Amino acid sequence: MRDTTRENRKLEILDTTLRDGMQGRGISFSIEDKLAIVSALDRLGIDWIEAGNPFSNPKDLEFFTRAGALSLRHATLVAFGSTRKPGSRAEEDPGVQALLRSGAGAVSIVGKAWDLHVTDVLRCPLEENLAMIEETVRFFVRHGRTVMFDAEHFFDGYKANPRYALEALRAAERAGASLCTLCDTNGGCFPDEIARMVAEIAKLLTIPVGIHCHGDIGCAEANTYLAVEAGARHVQGTYLGFGERCGNAALSTVIPALQIKRGWRCIPEEALRQITPTAHLIADISNITLPDNLPFVGRSAFAHKGGMHVDGVSKNHITFEHIDPAQVGNHRAFLVSEVSGRSAILSRLREIDPTLTKESPQTIQIVDALKELERKGFQFESASASFELLVRRILGRFTPYFSLDHYRIIQQREGMSDNSSAAMIKVKVGDRTRITAAESEDGPVHALDLALRRALEAFYPALSNVRLSDFKVRVIDSKQATAAAVRVLIDSTDGKRIWTTVGASPDIISASWMALEDSMQYKLMIDAAEARPIPPED
Amino acid sequence: MRDTTRENRKLEILDTTLRDGMQGRGISFSIEDKLAIVSALDRLGIDWIEAGNPFSNPKDLEFFTRAGALSLRHATLVAFGSTRKPGSRAEEDPGVQALLRSGAGAVSIVGKAWDLHVTDVLRCPLEENLAMIEETVRFFVRHGRTVMFDAEHFFDGYKANPRYALEALRAAERAGASLCTLCDTNGGCFPDEIARMVAEIAKLLTIPVGIHCHGDIGCAEANTYLAVEAGARHVQGTYLGFGERCGNAALSTVIPALQIKRGWRCIPEEALRQITPTAHLIADISNITLPDNLPFVGRSAFAHKGGMHVDGVSKNHITFEHIDPAQVGNHRAFLVSEVSGRSAILSRLREIDPTLTKESPQTIQIVDALKELERKGFQFESASASFELLVRRILGRFTPYFSLDHYRIIQQREGMSDNSSAAMIKVKVGDRTRITAAESEDGPVHALDLALRRALEAFYPALSNVRLSDFKVRVIDSKQATAAAVRVLIDSTDGKRIWTTVGASPDIISASWMALEDSMQYKLMIDAAEARPIPPED
Repeated sequence: MRDTTRENRKLEILDTTLRDGMQGRGISFSIEDKLAIVSALDRLGIDWIEAGNPFSNPKDLEFFTRAGALSLRHATLVAFGSTRKPGSRAEEDPGVQALLRSGAGAVSIVGKAWDLHVTDVLRCPLEENLAMIEETVRFFVRHGRTVMFDAEHFFDGYKANPRYALEALRAAERAGASLCTLCDTNGGCFPDEIARMVAEIAKLLTIPVGIHCHGDIGCAEANTYLAVEAGARHVQGTYLGFGERCGNAALSTVIPALQIKRGWRCIPEEALRQITPTAHLIADISNITLPDNLPFVGRSAFAHKGGMHVDGVSKNHITFEHIDPAQVGNHRAFLVSEVSGRSAILSRLREIDPTLTKESPQTIQIVDALKELERKGFQFESASASFELLVRRILGRFTPYFSLDHYRIIQQREGMSDNSSAAMIKVKVGDRTRITAAESEDGPVHALDLALRRALEAFYPALSNVRLSDFKVRVIDSKQATAAAVRVLIDSTDGKRIWTTVGASPDIISASWMALEDSMQYKLMIDAAEARPIPPED
Repeated sequence: MRDTTRENRKLEILDTTLRDGMQGRGISFSIEDKLAIVSALDRLGIDWIEAGNPFSNPKDLEFFTRAGALSLRHATLVAFGSTRKPGSRAEEDPGVQALLRSGAGAVSIVGKAWDLHVTDVLRCPLEENLAMIEETVRFFVRHGRTVMFDAEHFFDGYKANPRYALEALRAAERAGASLCTLCDTNGGCFPDEIARMVAEIAKLLTIPVGIHCHGDIGCAEANTYLAVEAGARHVQGTYLGFGERCGNAALSTVIPALQIKRGWRCIPEEALRQITPTAHLIADISNITLPDNLPFVGRSAFAHKGGMHVDGVSKNHITFEHIDPAQVGNHRAFLVSEVSGRSAILSRLREIDPTLTKESPQTIQIVDALKELERKGFQFESASASFELLVRRILGRFTPYFSLDHYRIIQQREGMSDNSSAAMIKVKVGDRTRITAAESEDGPVHALDLALRRALEAFYPALSNVRLSDFKVRVIDSKQATAAAVRVLIDSTDGKRIWTTVGASPDIISASWMALEDSMQYKLMIDAAEARPIPPED
């Protein structure tokens, strides 16, 4: 353990989700998206938010104008831009002017530190590039800005021509930059290389050193850790790790790893529990699915599947968890599956009936039913709602809110023209029945979904709030071709909760029906038992 | 650069996709899936394939029986199991017996190296655990097996009680283990810690040291690299990095990083170009989407979006790429530029019409059609047969062998009982038409498939040899719920060839129809042009 009182172990954090992150495939933010992300990062206690390049992207210029109205509690906005162009003057360069007009109190100036880039990309003399760095930095310092210098390709440059790479840093230092960030722009450096080079530079400069890593060989986070231990005091990354190519160091990984496990202070201690909720929020705004396996914040980060693992965690959580998931606002989950064994299932069963033991006949009956259903293609790992319904049905603790009398679907296609689907459904609720129909151009499952809701809403108006937020289909043994079993997973939400249900059958409509039915039954059950605490979904 | 002639820089690679990988969320393999993955890894030149735990999972026992019939060119199969239970004898332990019965020539024996696990999980004396390791390893050595010892939680154990952790390794070494693999089972160790501990252990043991890392702080690959530089000579991982919680070191990252960039020999040099195709194949068999940002093999690994990046790469690719993507069988993409899209497609077009150039109007028309179809959810990367039909249709080089007049499908379900589907189809061949019907309990797509074959076989008896060997379904934008577009990929075979076709639509039946129709048209086309050489499917 480190003694955090003996030295100043504060690191500056810069989030570049809105600039480098936006260079990731499929990522695009509206101005409202950007403002929402800025607020979330500010609440978390991030020091600097690099929010865009006002020159390359006119939307970013408007963003900085509107962002002036935000009252940030902690963070400072940073505008990003390049050094002036070769052969021009800083004050006349349109990029420099756009950056100044952005009004941001801090600017990141990116410049070349690899001689190859000067000769092959800028195509100007090596001396001119140094002048571009120095004059651009000095221009913004004179205008009262905090200037961070981003040394692009620093490490590749330092390997190729260490003297020149250092001269680039010294030009920025001389001109009054507040720090020099060393960038592994191509993401191909190894941790031992980064550690050695950062240690050398940190000794040579009088201003702090920052680190900016990419993951092209899977080392973005590791390189960041070793750079910090070697002397870097400013850390850049994108919150969820997305960015150009393989992405940037993920701050949702780096912050808890450095703060909880190595004693570096990155954000206020009490904000650590917001690490996971902030990840969900940023994923939602970015319109991406949070990767299950993202360290600390992913749905699987503390999910145990192997039988030995489940058994160990049940006895003492530190046997198979490197930290307590609650420290970062995440939670443990036991995945129910053929490899997880009876103890994993038992802990889930006990949330429903605390009197059950490993040897109870109901436990054995449930385990057997589970195996049989998994053989048919069901999977309950993520479908906790269907799992709970299954268990309650076997325990005799569930009365269905409705039942299916029948459905009929008619589907047709004429030549090359579009398709049409129509569904008719009859449901029973107590002694009453209701028959409805719906049609869709989006296929038979959509028609069935619409018809079912119409039928049920007459009895249960609360179902009108339910929205299916995700729909996944897997062919299980695809070698059986069109006769193969199909598994359907549906995520539903009523705005307050999200629950997942499953169905499986060789017939995709039948599989979808099972998952749809479970979704509605589950919603009605939890509404009816609002007083009873609901176990969290995993 | 390192001098590879001066030392033996060969590393042993062990892939545990089929064992540790199977502990990842949502991963489940049939025996056929496992056999297909074993063959793919063997072709790549992987040394060891850890293929399952015959005791915990009866399916794995059957797998090892069937795997005996595979003739592997390079790899050796490894069965995984635990040391005997406390207080038993190795030869009487059911787990040990199952492992022996598996018939695998090599076994991985996992044992505890962290004293906390012995006291809190096994709940037996520390001495007993050492005896369990020694006796179990010796038992398999006596039975002529190659025995690898997996020291579970080695690093956490070595931090807590270095003497005991080392004794666990020494027990295995004494009993004749061929190597000791040091596992960071909880995935929470930093690269500097791993480097220090591996260097210490490599000096103390007389047998080689292996490394097995997890990614809970984002360091699975980095820890592996530094362990190798510190003396490890055996590397474990899962090919795509999936596994328990945040997953394992991804061999598709580790192998090219160590071999291309650090001069370690992991697989035959000529196999490096198969790194990316093998990743696609294993993702397909595992029924997961290959993450875009996976280093080396992902679709975005060499995709450039930022303007500066695209400009730089166009001038000199090493300015923004850490290796040449062709070295690992991947390729560069410019996300903003349609020009790059055109050159990539051109090489495929020239197989059909060698006179086409980048500027031919047909090339532009095909690129536009492709973009529009991809927007709708089609994907032609693996569906070469559909791609060829698309190109030939646009070039006016394809006359359909049949066309659809219409189909109608009726689907019904009564209460809890089984489902029935019936399909009626009318096809035209020249001036003639034929109407047929078929029914199925395996859903509407199966019924449609049967009816189509019946209708066509009257005209084309050769179609009776066609079998659909694979059927995959992907929901493309799953947030659209039941109205989301669905992509269907069908593999077909006539015993001589395999071809893949694709369809996409919000309606799964319509998507399946497109892929089915393409499959039959393609078969008839290649039969008719038997003399013309068929471009290989990829």
